[in-house]
Amino acid sequence: MQMPVTVLGLGSMGAALAGAFLDAGHPTTVWNRTAARATPLADRGAHPSATVVDAVTASPLVITCLTTFDATMKTLEPAAAALGGRILVTLNSGAPAEARRTAAWAAEHGIRFLGGAIKNVPAAVGLPDTLLYYGGDRAAFDEVEPALRALGGDTVHLGDEPDLAALYEMAVGGTLLPALVGFFQGAAAVQARGLEASTLVPYTVKWLEMIASVLPVFAGEIDSGDYSRPMSSVGIFAAGMEAEREFATEAGVDGAWLAPLHDLLRRAIQEGHGEHSVAALTEVLKTPA
Amino acid sequence: MQMPVTVLGLGSMGAALAGAFLDAGHPTTVWNRTAARATPLADRGAHPSATVVDAVTASPLVITCLTTFDATMKTLEPAAAALGGRILVTLNSGAPAEARRTAAWAAEHGIRFLGGAIKNVPAAVGLPDTLLYYGGDRAAFDEVEPALRALGGDTVHLGDEPDLAALYEMAVGGTLLPALVGFFQGAAAVQARGLEASTLVPYTVKWLEMIASVLPVFAGEIDSGDYSRPMSSVGIFAAGMEAEREFATEAGVDGAWLAPLHDLLRRAIQEGHGEHSVAALTEVLKTPA
Repeated sequence: MQMPVTVLGLGSMGAALAGAFLDAGHPTTVWNRTAARATPLADRGAHPSATVVDAVTASPLVITCLTTFDATMKTLEPAAAALGGRILVTLNSGAPAEARRTAAWAAEHGIRFLGGAIKNVPAAVGLPDTLLYYGGDRAAFDEVEPALRALGGDTVHLGDEPDLAALYEMAVGGTLLPALVGFFQGAAAVQARGLEASTLVPYTVKWLEMIASVLPVFAGEIDSGDYSRPMSSVGIFAAGMEAEREFATEAGVDGAWLAPLHDLLRRAIQEGHGEHSVAALTEVLKTPA
Repeated sequence: MQMPVTVLGLGSMGAALAGAFLDAGHPTTVWNRTAARATPLADRGAHPSATVVDAVTASPLVITCLTTFDATMKTLEPAAAALGGRILVTLNSGAPAEARRTAAWAAEHGIRFLGGAIKNVPAAVGLPDTLLYYGGDRAAFDEVEPALRALGGDTVHLGDEPDLAALYEMAVGGTLLPALVGFFQGAAAVQARGLEASTLVPYTVKWLEMIASVLPVFAGEIDSGDYSRPMSSVGIFAAGMEAEREFATEAGVDGAWLAPLHDLLRRAIQEGHGEHSVAALTEVLKTPA
Protein backbone atom coordinates (compact mmCIF):
# COMPACT_ATOMS: atom_id res chain seq x y z
CA MET A 1 0.00 0.00 0.00
CA GLN A 2 1.15 3.52 -0.73
CA MET A 3 1.92 5.74 2.25
CA PRO A 4 -1.16 7.60 3.56
CA VAL A 5 -0.77 11.37 3.19
CA THR A 6 -2.60 14.39 4.51
CA VAL A 7 -2.83 17.69 2.63
CA LEU A 8 -3.79 20.83 4.54
CA GLY A 9 -4.79 23.83 2.45
CA LEU A 10 -6.71 23.30 -0.78
CA GLY A 11 -6.05 26.41 -2.81
CA SER A 12 -5.27 25.77 -6.47
CA MET A 13 -1.81 24.42 -5.62
CA GLY A 14 -2.92 22.38 -2.57
CA ALA A 15 -5.76 20.84 -4.56
CA ALA A 16 -3.29 19.92 -7.32
CA LEU A 17 -1.00 18.26 -4.75
CA ALA A 18 -3.85 16.23 -3.25
CA GLY A 19 -4.97 15.26 -6.76
CA ALA A 20 -1.47 14.01 -7.62
CA PHE A 21 -1.39 11.85 -4.47
CA LEU A 22 -4.80 10.40 -5.38
CA ASP A 23 -3.62 9.70 -8.94
CA ALA A 24 -0.61 7.85 -7.52
CA GLY A 25 -2.82 5.70 -5.31
CA HIS A 26 -2.04 7.25 -1.92
CA PRO A 27 -4.80 7.18 0.71
CA THR A 28 -5.25 10.95 0.88
CA THR A 29 -6.80 12.93 3.71
CA VAL A 30 -7.60 16.59 3.05
CA TRP A 31 -8.57 19.61 5.10
CA ASN A 32 -9.37 23.18 4.18
CA ARG A 33 -10.67 26.06 6.27
CA THR A 34 -13.54 26.42 3.79
CA ALA A 35 -14.70 22.82 3.68
CA ALA A 36 -16.41 23.08 0.28
CA ARG A 37 -12.99 23.17 -1.44
CA ALA A 38 -12.61 19.48 -0.44
CA THR A 39 -15.70 18.27 -2.30
CA PRO A 40 -14.17 17.76 -5.78
CA LEU A 41 -11.30 15.84 -4.17
CA ALA A 42 -13.71 13.73 -2.09
CA ASP A 43 -15.44 12.85 -5.37
CA ARG A 44 -12.05 11.50 -6.53
CA GLY A 45 -11.60 9.40 -3.38
CA ALA A 46 -10.00 11.76 -0.86
CA HIS A 47 -11.08 11.68 2.80
CA PRO A 48 -12.10 15.14 4.02
CA SER A 49 -11.44 15.85 7.69
CA ALA A 50 -13.53 18.26 9.73
CA THR A 51 -10.60 19.29 11.95
CA VAL A 52 -6.86 19.73 11.57
CA VAL A 53 -6.27 17.24 14.42
CA ASP A 54 -8.30 14.57 12.65
CA ALA A 55 -6.54 15.28 9.38
CA VAL A 56 -3.08 15.10 10.92
CA THR A 57 -3.84 11.91 12.81
CA ALA A 58 -4.75 10.10 9.61
CA SER A 59 -1.24 9.96 8.05
CA PRO A 60 2.46 9.71 8.89
CA LEU A 61 3.15 12.38 6.24
CA VAL A 62 1.47 15.78 6.48
CA ILE A 63 1.85 18.33 3.68
CA THR A 64 0.81 21.93 4.21
CA CYS A 65 0.10 24.29 1.36
CA LEU A 66 -1.08 27.42 3.18
CA THR A 67 -0.31 31.03 2.30
CA THR A 68 2.60 31.75 4.68
CA PHE A 69 4.70 30.13 7.40
CA ASP A 70 2.76 32.21 9.93
CA ALA A 71 -0.57 30.90 8.66
CA THR A 72 0.89 27.38 8.68
CA MET A 73 1.94 27.58 12.35
CA LYS A 74 -1.38 29.13 13.38
CA THR A 75 -3.27 26.34 11.61
CA LEU A 76 -1.07 23.61 13.08
CA GLU A 77 -0.84 24.93 16.65
CA PRO A 78 -3.97 23.09 17.93
CA ALA A 79 -2.62 19.87 16.34
CA ALA A 80 0.97 20.19 17.58
CA ALA A 81 0.72 17.21 19.93
CA ALA A 82 -0.93 15.05 17.27
CA LEU A 83 1.87 15.94 14.83
CA GLY A 84 4.61 14.69 17.19
CA GLY A 85 6.67 11.95 15.52
CA ARG A 86 5.10 12.56 12.12
CA ILE A 87 6.81 14.14 9.12
CA LEU A 88 5.65 17.66 8.28
CA VAL A 89 6.43 19.10 4.85
CA THR A 90 5.62 22.76 4.14
CA LEU A 91 5.10 23.82 0.53
CA ASN A 92 4.32 27.50 0.92
CA SER A 93 6.50 30.45 -0.07
CA GLY A 94 8.26 32.60 2.51
CA ALA A 95 11.58 33.99 3.66
CA PRO A 96 14.30 31.63 4.94
CA ALA A 97 14.02 33.15 8.44
CA GLU A 98 10.35 32.13 8.54
CA ALA A 99 11.26 28.60 7.48
CA ARG A 100 13.80 28.42 10.32
CA ARG A 101 11.20 29.70 12.80
CA THR A 102 8.79 26.99 11.62
CA ALA A 103 11.52 24.35 11.88
CA ALA A 104 12.27 25.46 15.46
CA TRP A 105 8.58 25.26 16.33
CA ALA A 106 8.39 21.77 14.81
CA ALA A 107 11.51 20.63 16.73
CA GLU A 108 9.97 21.88 19.99
CA HIS A 109 7.00 19.58 19.40
CA GLY A 110 8.99 16.57 18.24
CA ILE A 111 7.77 16.98 14.66
CA ARG A 112 10.13 15.87 11.88
CA PHE A 113 10.32 18.81 9.49
CA LEU A 114 11.08 19.33 5.80
CA GLY A 115 10.73 22.77 4.26
CA GLY A 116 9.87 22.37 0.60
CA ALA A 117 9.08 24.45 -2.44
CA ILE A 118 7.41 23.71 -5.71
CA LYS A 119 8.86 25.77 -8.53
CA ASN A 120 6.00 25.60 -10.98
CA VAL A 121 2.30 26.19 -11.58
CA PRO A 122 -0.48 23.90 -10.28
CA ALA A 123 -1.00 22.39 -13.74
CA ALA A 124 2.57 21.04 -13.66
CA VAL A 125 2.11 19.09 -10.40
CA GLY A 126 2.76 15.38 -10.93
CA LEU A 127 4.65 15.71 -14.22
CA PRO A 128 7.97 13.88 -14.61
CA ASP A 129 9.93 17.10 -15.20
CA THR A 130 8.38 19.19 -12.41
CA LEU A 131 10.89 20.44 -9.83
CA LEU A 132 10.32 20.36 -6.08
CA TYR A 133 13.10 20.82 -3.60
CA TYR A 134 13.35 20.25 0.11
CA GLY A 135 15.66 21.11 2.97
CA GLY A 136 15.82 19.41 6.38
CA ASP A 137 16.25 16.04 8.06
CA ARG A 138 17.73 13.67 5.46
CA ALA A 139 16.36 10.51 7.11
CA ALA A 140 12.84 11.93 7.03
CA PHE A 141 13.30 12.87 3.37
CA ASP A 142 14.45 9.34 2.50
CA GLU A 143 11.37 7.86 4.20
CA VAL A 144 8.88 9.98 2.28
CA GLU A 145 10.75 10.52 -0.99
CA PRO A 146 8.73 7.85 -2.87
CA ALA A 147 5.53 9.63 -1.85
CA LEU A 148 6.95 13.09 -2.65
CA ARG A 149 7.85 11.90 -6.15
CA ALA A 150 4.11 11.73 -6.88
CA LEU A 151 4.22 15.55 -6.90
CA GLY A 152 6.93 15.90 -9.53
CA GLY A 153 9.66 13.74 -10.99
CA ASP A 154 12.46 16.24 -10.31
CA THR A 155 12.54 15.87 -6.52
CA VAL A 156 15.71 17.19 -4.86
CA HIS A 157 17.04 17.21 -1.29
CA LEU A 158 19.10 20.41 -1.05
CA GLY A 159 20.67 19.69 2.33
CA ASP A 160 19.97 19.31 6.03
CA GLU A 161 19.23 22.95 6.80
CA PRO A 162 15.45 23.42 6.96
CA ASP A 163 15.45 26.81 5.23
CA LEU A 164 17.34 25.80 2.09
CA ALA A 165 14.21 25.39 -0.02
CA ALA A 166 13.01 28.84 1.07
CA LEU A 167 16.45 30.27 0.29
CA TYR A 168 16.57 28.73 -3.18
CA GLU A 169 12.93 29.42 -3.90
CA MET A 170 13.37 33.11 -3.17
CA ALA A 171 16.76 33.28 -4.89
CA VAL A 172 15.32 31.66 -8.01
CA GLY A 173 11.88 33.23 -7.83
CA GLY A 174 13.26 36.75 -7.71
CA THR A 175 13.40 36.83 -11.49
CA LEU A 176 9.64 36.34 -11.92
CA LEU A 177 7.98 39.64 -11.06
CA PRO A 178 10.65 41.82 -12.74
CA ALA A 179 10.71 39.66 -15.88
CA LEU A 180 6.91 39.75 -16.07
CA VAL A 181 6.78 43.51 -15.62
CA GLY A 182 9.33 43.79 -18.45
CA PHE A 183 7.07 41.63 -20.59
CA PHE A 184 3.93 43.59 -19.63
CA GLN A 185 5.66 46.85 -20.56
CA GLY A 186 6.55 45.38 -23.95
CA ALA A 187 2.96 44.19 -24.36
CA ALA A 188 1.66 47.69 -23.60
CA ALA A 189 4.11 49.14 -26.11
CA VAL A 190 3.08 46.89 -28.99
CA GLN A 191 -0.58 47.46 -28.10
CA ALA A 192 0.04 51.21 -28.31
CA ARG A 193 0.96 50.55 -31.96
CA GLY A 194 -2.21 48.57 -32.62
CA LEU A 195 -0.41 45.21 -32.50
CA GLU A 196 -1.32 42.22 -30.33
CA ALA A 197 0.62 41.32 -27.20
CA SER A 198 0.54 37.71 -28.40
CA THR A 199 2.86 38.62 -31.30
CA LEU A 200 5.60 39.17 -28.71
CA VAL A 201 5.40 35.72 -27.17
CA PRO A 202 7.52 33.64 -29.58
CA TYR A 203 10.26 36.28 -29.54
CA THR A 204 10.18 36.63 -25.76
CA VAL A 205 10.31 32.85 -25.34
CA LYS A 206 13.45 32.77 -27.47
CA TRP A 207 14.87 35.69 -25.50
CA LEU A 208 14.31 33.86 -22.20
CA GLU A 209 16.15 30.88 -23.69
CA MET A 210 19.02 33.21 -24.53
CA ILE A 211 19.03 34.58 -20.97
CA ALA A 212 19.05 31.02 -19.61
CA SER A 213 21.99 30.14 -21.86
CA VAL A 214 24.21 32.94 -20.51
CA LEU A 215 23.49 32.40 -16.79
CA PRO A 216 26.32 29.86 -16.33
CA VAL A 217 28.80 32.50 -17.54
CA PHE A 218 27.42 35.15 -15.17
CA ALA A 219 27.32 32.68 -12.25
CA GLY A 220 30.93 31.74 -12.93
CA GLU A 221 31.94 35.41 -12.85
CA ILE A 222 30.06 35.93 -9.58
CA ASP A 223 31.66 32.85 -7.99
CA SER A 224 35.17 33.83 -9.08
CA GLY A 225 34.67 37.56 -8.49
CA ASP A 226 36.42 38.14 -11.83
CA TYR A 227 34.32 40.43 -14.01
CA SER A 228 37.16 41.55 -16.26
CA ARG A 229 36.35 39.59 -19.43
CA PRO A 230 32.77 40.71 -20.10
CA MET A 231 30.48 39.01 -22.56
CA SER A 232 28.21 42.00 -21.99
CA SER A 233 29.46 44.99 -20.04
CA VAL A 234 27.82 47.37 -17.57
CA GLY A 235 28.67 50.13 -20.06
CA ILE A 236 26.73 48.43 -22.86
CA PHE A 237 23.66 48.21 -20.63
CA ALA A 238 24.13 51.80 -19.47
CA ALA A 239 24.29 52.95 -23.09
CA GLY A 240 20.76 51.60 -23.54
CA MET A 241 19.19 53.51 -20.63
CA GLU A 242 18.21 56.59 -22.63
CA ALA A 243 16.52 54.44 -25.30
CA GLU A 244 14.66 52.52 -22.57
CA ARG A 245 13.27 55.75 -21.13
CA GLU A 246 12.30 57.04 -24.60
CA PHE A 247 10.65 53.73 -25.36
CA ALA A 248 8.52 53.85 -22.20
CA THR A 249 7.53 57.45 -22.94
CA GLU A 250 6.65 56.72 -26.57
CA ALA A 251 4.60 53.70 -25.51
CA GLY A 252 2.76 55.80 -22.91
CA VAL A 253 4.02 53.42 -20.24
CA ASP A 254 4.99 54.29 -16.69
CA GLY A 255 8.74 53.67 -16.74
CA ALA A 256 9.29 54.50 -13.06
CA TRP A 257 10.07 50.86 -12.29
CA LEU A 258 13.21 51.16 -14.46
CA ALA A 259 14.74 54.00 -12.45
CA PRO A 260 16.36 51.93 -9.66
CA LEU A 261 17.68 49.42 -12.21
CA HIS A 262 19.33 52.31 -14.03
CA ASP A 263 20.63 53.61 -10.69
CA LEU A 264 22.35 50.25 -10.18
CA LEU A 265 24.07 50.63 -13.56
CA ARG A 266 25.20 54.17 -12.69
CA ARG A 267 26.49 53.06 -9.29
CA ALA A 268 28.36 50.19 -10.93
CA ILE A 269 30.09 52.67 -13.24
CA GLN A 270 30.93 54.96 -10.31
CA GLU A 271 32.45 51.97 -8.53
CA GLY A 272 34.70 51.26 -11.51
CA HIS A 273 32.69 48.47 -13.16
CA GLY A 274 31.92 50.28 -16.45
CA GLU A 275 34.09 47.95 -18.52
CA HIS A 276 33.25 44.91 -16.39
CA SER A 277 30.63 42.25 -16.95
CA VAL A 278 27.08 43.26 -16.11
CA ALA A 279 27.25 40.47 -13.51
CA ALA A 280 29.29 42.93 -11.44
CA LEU A 281 25.90 44.43 -10.49
CA THR A 282 25.92 41.62 -7.93
CA GLU A 283 28.70 43.47 -6.08
CA VAL A 284 26.70 46.71 -6.20
CA LEU A 285 23.66 44.93 -4.78
CA LYS A 286 25.85 43.68 -1.91
CA THR A 287 26.86 47.23 -0.95
CA PRO A 288 23.65 49.14 -0.17
CA ALA A 289 23.77 52.81 -1.28
CA MET B 1 28.72 34.41 -56.59
CA GLN B 2 27.32 35.42 -53.22
CA MET B 3 26.23 39.05 -52.84
CA PRO B 4 29.09 41.32 -51.72
CA VAL B 5 28.42 42.83 -48.31
CA THR B 6 29.95 45.61 -46.25
CA VAL B 7 29.97 45.62 -42.45
CA LEU B 8 30.59 48.92 -40.64
CA GLY B 9 31.43 48.66 -36.94
CA LEU B 10 33.52 45.75 -35.70
CA GLY B 11 32.71 45.48 -32.03
CA SER B 12 32.16 41.92 -30.82
CA MET B 13 28.78 41.72 -32.57
CA GLY B 14 29.91 43.45 -35.79
CA ALA B 15 32.95 41.19 -36.01
CA ALA B 16 30.70 38.13 -35.55
CA LEU B 17 28.43 39.37 -38.37
CA ALA B 18 31.37 39.89 -40.73
CA GLY B 19 32.72 36.47 -39.79
CA ALA B 20 29.39 34.83 -40.60
CA PHE B 21 29.34 36.49 -44.04
CA LEU B 22 32.87 35.26 -44.68
CA ASP B 23 31.92 31.74 -43.57
CA ALA B 24 29.00 31.82 -46.02
CA GLY B 25 31.29 32.84 -48.88
CA HIS B 26 30.25 36.48 -49.26
CA PRO B 27 32.89 38.94 -50.49
CA THR B 28 33.03 40.99 -47.30
CA THR B 29 34.29 44.53 -46.92
CA VAL B 30 34.80 45.82 -43.38
CA TRP B 31 35.43 49.17 -41.74
CA ASN B 32 35.96 50.20 -38.15
CA ARG B 33 36.93 53.54 -36.62
CA THR B 34 39.87 51.79 -34.92
CA ALA B 35 41.32 50.02 -37.95
CA ALA B 36 43.16 47.33 -35.92
CA ARG B 37 39.82 45.61 -35.18
CA ALA B 38 39.71 44.64 -38.89
CA THR B 39 42.97 42.66 -38.85
CA PRO B 40 41.63 39.28 -37.64
CA LEU B 41 38.86 39.48 -40.25
CA ALA B 42 41.34 40.46 -42.99
CA ASP B 43 43.27 37.31 -42.06
CA ARG B 44 40.09 35.36 -42.82
CA GLY B 45 39.66 37.03 -46.23
CA ALA B 46 37.76 40.25 -45.50
CA HIS B 47 38.67 43.46 -47.34
CA PRO B 48 39.35 46.30 -44.89
CA SER B 49 38.50 49.79 -46.15
CA ALA B 50 40.25 52.92 -44.95
CA THR B 51 37.18 55.12 -45.32
CA VAL B 52 33.42 54.71 -44.93
CA VAL B 53 32.92 55.90 -48.53
CA ASP B 54 35.24 53.21 -49.87
CA ALA B 55 33.56 50.57 -47.72
CA VAL B 56 30.05 51.55 -48.79
CA THR B 57 31.00 51.69 -52.47
CA ALA B 58 32.22 48.08 -52.40
CA SER B 59 28.80 46.39 -51.91
CA PRO B 60 25.08 46.71 -52.74
CA LEU B 61 24.29 45.69 -49.13
CA VAL B 62 25.68 47.69 -46.22
CA ILE B 63 25.22 46.48 -42.63
CA THR B 64 25.94 48.81 -39.73
CA CYS B 65 26.58 47.55 -36.23
CA LEU B 66 27.41 50.76 -34.38
CA THR B 67 26.39 51.73 -30.85
CA THR B 68 23.32 53.91 -31.56
CA PHE B 69 21.24 55.29 -34.43
CA ASP B 70 22.90 58.65 -33.81
CA ALA B 71 26.37 57.17 -34.14
CA THR B 72 25.20 55.36 -37.26
CA MET B 73 23.98 58.54 -38.96
CA LYS B 74 27.12 60.47 -37.97
CA THR B 75 29.29 57.71 -39.40
CA LEU B 76 27.28 57.46 -42.63
CA GLU B 77 26.76 61.19 -43.26
CA PRO B 78 29.99 61.62 -45.34
CA ALA B 79 28.99 58.56 -47.40
CA ALA B 80 25.32 59.49 -47.91
CA ALA B 81 25.71 60.11 -51.65
CA ALA B 82 27.66 56.86 -52.11
CA LEU B 83 24.89 54.97 -50.27
CA GLY B 84 22.18 56.20 -52.68
CA GLY B 85 20.41 53.24 -54.32
CA ARG B 86 22.07 50.71 -52.00
CA ILE B 87 20.38 48.76 -49.23
CA LEU B 88 21.30 49.85 -45.69
CA VAL B 89 20.56 47.51 -42.78
CA THR B 90 21.08 48.77 -39.23
CA LEU B 91 21.68 46.21 -36.49
CA ASN B 92 22.12 48.43 -33.46
CA SER B 93 19.75 48.85 -30.52
CA GLY B 94 17.69 51.99 -30.03
CA ALA B 95 14.23 53.42 -29.56
CA PRO B 96 11.66 53.15 -32.37
CA ALA B 97 11.65 56.96 -32.79
CA GLU B 98 15.40 56.82 -33.53
CA ALA B 99 14.83 54.09 -36.10
CA ARG B 100 12.20 56.26 -37.80
CA ARG B 101 14.58 59.22 -37.81
CA THR B 102 17.25 57.08 -39.45
CA ALA B 103 14.74 55.79 -42.00
CA ALA B 104 13.74 59.37 -42.85
CA TRP B 105 17.39 60.32 -43.27
CA ALA B 106 17.93 57.32 -45.54
CA ALA B 107 14.86 58.16 -47.63
CA GLU B 108 16.14 61.72 -48.09
CA HIS B 109 19.29 60.31 -49.64
CA GLY B 110 17.62 57.66 -51.77
CA ILE B 111 18.95 54.86 -49.55
CA ARG B 112 16.81 51.73 -49.26
CA PHE B 113 16.48 51.08 -45.54
CA LEU B 114 15.85 48.09 -43.29
CA GLY B 115 15.99 48.48 -39.51
CA GLY B 116 17.03 45.16 -38.00
CA ALA B 117 17.78 43.64 -34.63
CA ILE B 118 19.65 40.55 -33.57
CA LYS B 119 18.16 39.00 -30.46
CA ASN B 120 21.13 37.04 -29.26
CA VAL B 121 24.80 37.09 -28.28
CA PRO B 122 27.70 37.31 -30.76
CA ALA B 123 28.50 33.61 -30.32
CA ALA B 124 25.04 32.74 -31.71
CA VAL B 125 25.52 34.63 -34.98
CA GLY B 126 25.19 32.31 -37.98
CA LEU B 127 23.43 29.46 -36.15
CA PRO B 128 20.28 27.95 -37.69
CA ASP B 129 18.10 28.88 -34.71
CA THR B 130 19.34 32.44 -34.21
CA LEU B 131 16.63 35.11 -34.53
CA LEU B 132 17.05 38.36 -36.43
CA TYR B 133 14.13 40.51 -37.41
CA TYR B 134 13.78 43.43 -39.76
CA GLY B 135 11.27 46.16 -40.56
CA GLY B 136 11.10 48.25 -43.72
CA ASP B 137 10.88 48.02 -47.52
CA ARG B 138 9.72 44.49 -48.32
CA ALA B 139 11.26 44.46 -51.83
CA ALA B 140 14.64 45.38 -50.39
CA PHE B 141 14.28 42.63 -47.78
CA ASP B 142 13.46 40.05 -50.46
CA GLU B 143 16.57 41.03 -52.44
CA VAL B 144 18.95 40.61 -49.52
CA GLU B 145 17.20 37.89 -47.52
CA PRO B 146 19.50 35.10 -48.79
CA ALA B 147 22.51 37.12 -47.60
CA LEU B 148 20.86 38.02 -44.27
CA ARG B 149 20.21 34.32 -43.61
CA ALA B 150 23.97 33.91 -43.21
CA LEU B 151 23.56 35.76 -39.89
CA GLY B 152 20.93 33.44 -38.43
CA GLY B 153 18.45 30.90 -39.71
CA ASP B 154 15.43 32.48 -38.01
CA THR B 155 15.22 35.58 -40.22
CA VAL B 156 11.88 37.43 -40.04
CA HIS B 157 10.39 40.43 -41.88
CA LEU B 158 8.06 42.04 -39.34
CA GLY B 159 6.41 44.50 -41.73
CA ASP B 160 6.97 47.58 -43.86
CA GLU B 161 7.39 50.08 -41.04
CA PRO B 162 11.09 50.76 -40.54
CA ASP B 163 10.90 50.92 -36.74
CA LEU B 164 9.24 47.55 -36.14
CA ALA B 165 12.48 45.77 -35.29
CA ALA B 166 13.34 48.51 -32.78
CA LEU B 167 9.83 48.27 -31.34
CA TYR B 168 9.99 44.50 -30.94
CA GLU B 169 13.59 44.50 -29.80
CA MET B 170 12.80 46.92 -26.99
CA ALA B 171 9.50 45.24 -26.16
CA VAL B 172 11.20 41.84 -25.95
CA GLY B 173 14.50 43.06 -24.51
CA GLY B 174 12.83 44.79 -21.58
CA THR B 175 12.86 41.54 -19.64
CA LEU B 176 16.66 41.24 -19.68
CA LEU B 177 18.00 43.74 -17.14
CA PRO B 178 15.23 43.13 -14.55
CA ALA B 179 15.51 39.35 -14.88
CA LEU B 180 19.30 39.54 -14.52
CA VAL B 181 19.10 41.79 -11.47
CA GLY B 182 16.67 39.27 -9.97
CA PHE B 183 19.21 36.53 -10.65
CA PHE B 184 22.11 38.59 -9.29
CA GLN B 185 20.17 39.24 -6.09
CA GLY B 186 19.58 35.51 -5.74
CA ALA B 187 23.27 34.87 -6.38
CA ALA B 188 24.25 37.35 -3.66
CA ALA B 189 21.80 35.68 -1.27
CA VAL B 190 23.16 32.16 -1.74
CA GLN B 191 26.72 33.51 -1.52
CA ALA B 192 25.79 35.12 1.79
CA ARG B 193 25.11 31.56 2.98
CA GLY B 194 28.46 30.28 1.73
CA LEU B 195 26.95 28.57 -1.30
CA GLU B 196 27.99 29.07 -4.93
CA ALA B 197 25.97 31.18 -7.34
CA SER B 198 26.41 28.37 -9.87
CA THR B 199 24.17 26.11 -7.76
CA LEU B 200 21.26 28.40 -8.68
CA VAL B 201 21.67 28.05 -12.43
CA PRO B 202 19.85 24.77 -13.14
CA TYR B 203 16.89 25.87 -11.00
CA THR B 204 16.75 29.33 -12.57
CA VAL B 205 16.92 27.82 -16.07
CA LYS B 206 13.91 25.68 -15.23
CA TRP B 207 12.16 28.70 -13.73
CA LEU B 208 12.71 30.71 -16.93
CA GLU B 209 11.19 27.80 -18.86
CA MET B 210 8.17 27.97 -16.55
CA ILE B 211 7.88 31.74 -17.14
CA ALA B 212 8.09 31.17 -20.91
CA SER B 213 5.35 28.55 -20.68
CA VAL B 214 2.85 30.91 -19.05
CA LEU B 215 3.42 33.93 -21.33
CA PRO B 216 0.80 32.85 -23.90
CA VAL B 217 -1.83 32.89 -21.13
CA PHE B 218 -0.80 36.36 -19.94
CA ALA B 219 -0.62 37.69 -23.52
CA GLY B 220 -4.13 36.35 -24.19
CA GLU B 221 -5.43 38.14 -21.08
CA ILE B 222 -3.75 41.38 -22.17
CA ASP B 223 -5.17 41.12 -25.71
CA SER B 224 -8.69 40.37 -24.48
CA GLY B 225 -8.54 42.76 -21.51
CA ASP B 226 -10.16 40.00 -19.44
CA TYR B 227 -8.14 39.40 -16.27
CA SER B 228 -10.98 37.77 -14.32
CA ARG B 229 -9.85 34.11 -14.41
CA PRO B 230 -6.37 34.38 -12.92
CA MET B 231 -3.81 31.59 -13.07
CA SER B 232 -1.82 33.76 -10.65
CA SER B 233 -3.40 36.82 -9.09
CA VAL B 234 -2.08 40.27 -8.18
CA GLY B 235 -3.03 39.40 -4.59
CA ILE B 236 -0.81 36.29 -4.58
CA PHE B 237 2.15 38.38 -5.73
CA ALA B 238 1.33 41.11 -3.22
CA ALA B 239 1.26 38.51 -0.42
CA GLY B 240 4.90 37.76 -1.21
CA MET B 241 6.17 41.35 -0.93
CA GLU B 242 6.99 41.20 2.77
CA ALA B 243 8.99 37.98 2.32
CA GLU B 244 10.86 39.55 -0.62
CA ARG B 245 11.89 42.51 1.53
CA GLU B 246 12.93 40.23 4.42
CA PHE B 247 14.88 38.07 2.01
CA ALA B 248 16.83 41.03 0.64
CA THR B 249 17.57 42.25 4.18
CA GLU B 250 18.67 38.82 5.38
CA ALA B 251 20.93 38.43 2.34
CA GLY B 252 22.45 41.86 2.95
CA VAL B 253 21.27 42.90 -0.49
CA ASP B 254 20.04 46.33 -1.53
CA GLY B 255 16.37 45.65 -2.23
CA ALA B 256 15.59 49.21 -3.37
CA TRP B 257 15.05 48.03 -6.93
CA LEU B 258 12.03 46.03 -5.73
CA ALA B 259 10.16 49.03 -4.35
CA PRO B 260 8.59 50.31 -7.60
CA LEU B 261 7.60 46.76 -8.57
CA HIS B 262 5.80 46.46 -5.26
CA ASP B 263 4.24 49.90 -5.84
CA LEU B 264 2.78 48.55 -9.09
CA LEU B 265 1.19 45.66 -7.16
CA ARG B 266 -0.26 48.07 -4.59
CA ARG B 267 -1.62 50.37 -7.30
CA ALA B 268 -3.17 47.37 -9.06
CA ILE B 269 -4.98 46.44 -5.85
CA GLN B 270 -6.15 50.05 -5.36
CA GLU B 271 -7.50 49.99 -8.91
CA GLY B 272 -9.55 46.86 -8.15
CA HIS B 273 -7.23 44.24 -9.65
CA GLY B 274 -6.45 42.34 -6.41
CA GLU B 275 -8.33 39.21 -7.50
CA HIS B 276 -7.35 39.64 -11.15
CA SER B 277 -4.49 38.04 -13.05
CA VAL B 278 -1.07 39.56 -12.43
CA ALA B 279 -1.14 40.43 -16.15
CA ALA B 280 -3.47 43.28 -15.13
CA LEU B 281 -0.26 45.11 -14.15
CA THR B 282 -0.17 45.94 -17.87
CA GLU B 283 -3.18 48.23 -17.32
CA VAL B 284 -1.44 49.88 -14.36
CA LEU B 285 1.67 50.50 -16.47
CA LYS B 286 -0.54 52.19 -19.08
CA THR B 287 -1.88 54.70 -16.53
CA PRO B 288 1.11 56.58 -15.09
CA ALA B 289 0.70 57.39 -11.40
